[in-house]
Amino acid sequence: MNIILIEKKELFGNRVILSDCRAKHIIKVLKSEVGDCLRLGILDGDRGEATVTAVHRKFPFVVELSVGLITSPGPPPVIDLLLALPRPIMLKRILSQVTALGIGTIYLVNANRVEKSFWDAGLLEEKEYRPHLIHGLEQAVDTRLPNIKIYRQFRPFVEDVLPRLVTKYSHLLLAHPLVEKNLSQCLDGSAERVLCAVGPEGGWVDFEVEKLLAAGMVSFSLGPRILKVDTAVVAIHSRISQELERESPR
Amino acid sequence: MNIILIEKKELFGNRVILSDCRAKHIIKVLKSEVGDCLRLGILDGDRGEATVTAVHRKFPFVVELSVGLITSPGPPPVIDLLLALPRPIMLKRILSQVTALGIGTIYLVNANRVEKSFWDAGLLEEKEYRPHLIHGLEQAVDTRLPNIKIYRQFRPFVEDVLPRLVTKYSHLLLAHPLVEKNLSQCLDGSAERVLCAVGPEGGWVDFEVEKLLAAGMVSFSLGPRILKVDTAVVAIHSRISQELERESPR
Repeated sequence: MNIILIEKKELFGNRVILSDCRAKHIIKVLKSEVGDCLRLGILDGDRGEATVTAVHRKFPFVVELSVGLITSPGPPPVIDLLLALPRPIMLKRILSQVTALGIGTIYLVNANRVEKSFWDAGLLEEKEYRPHLIHGLEQAVDTRLPNIKIYRQFRPFVEDVLPRLVTKYSHLLLAHPLVEKNLSQCLDGSAERVLCAVGPEGGWVDFEVEKLLAAGMVSFSLGPRILKVDTAVVAIHSRISQELERESPR
Repeated sequence: MNIILIEKKELFGNRVILSDCRAKHIIKVLKSEVGDCLRLGILDGDRGEATVTAVHRKFPFVVELSVGLITSPGPPPVIDLLLALPRPIMLKRILSQVTALGIGTIYLVNANRVEKSFWDAGLLEEKEYRPHLIHGLEQAVDTRLPNIKIYRQFRPFVEDVLPRLVTKYSHLLLAHPLVEKNLSQCLDGSAERVLCAVGPEGGWVDFEVEKLLAAGMVSFSLGPRILKVDTAVVAIHSRISQELERESPR
């Protein structure tokens, strides 16, 4: 936890009382004392500092904080992800990793090579996946929760939903092996907001590729090496970020 | 397994007999029959195809292959990694992920914020870490094993070893927050071979940064988001690759 994150409803005036793993973290890992300052943020809200005003150092751990919020969340991330539903254990890691890297919306969709059983995962309920998003925000010192949208059927998504989404993006990318174009040939200087599609283990089938291309996506290849989906997602996010930051240097 | 990898000593003439998890994979996952062709490679050697000549489909699984090697391994990867020793469970994942991405040498070094217990990990023995490298190669369809070099003391490494290494590289990079420069400002068109240093959770201490800079490394930042080491390693490798491929398009 590089920032303590709270829900807005946990704040009473400028005071918050923590009695869960966040209190334990403040006491056991940060070893904070009364008077110490911590980074604190409100989920989907501002960031700032909090001063420790009281601590109960033994179990049950309790920490009371006085909160001063000063910094609004930064600009929203400019990359969204269209992801064929991966197996739950991999999805957990992907959710926290891309949240740490900075992602706006993750569209989880079905695909021919997605195992049916993945759709039964409890992880697809908000109360189950939300902690993994928060974990990524705590890592990256961010407050802005990604949106998760779930589409259990590929065809209605690609025919009805995707065409309405495409106008939000300057670039629609489809990671796909065996094509000639590389990423820098697909992203020109005008890139503002990017949606990138990543397929399941084994890849999209031809029908799916055709449908995604018909919706306006442009395919690019990362080269001949085959990557696992979790590695590929981080690699693609990082490569797109590198291109975008090159266009608009910090 | 996107390629079946064997040791050179397993090859008798052009014949190889497999009776371990590779045989099981060929039978259970690939569902290969006599006459089918598979991708096969020799570790640190050539790649090609193998034809299934005999199969024992029940336990104990046995597969006999006739091997035709035709493709020499591609050019060696142009990125090496200098990594403060991470915790074993994270190191496992990093080893297979960067091997899949393509890495020449991984220098594992001590640092002030490396927990002493990490050095007791059995994973630091070759017989323990080698399977994770092979796993990465099997994923990426490669045969070229990365070199692993282990340095249990930071100071002798940075004072005696690193100065002898630097001449091998066109660029020496140090991922470090709180600096102004970004990656594209550090890699110019002449980049040929890159060594990149990634610190432990919590970062290098000032003394270590000074020593690495004194050895000729140039620091760059990925921006304000704090990443876990495993995410950071994949992100940095991908960003450097993106810059290098931009310089020399495929």
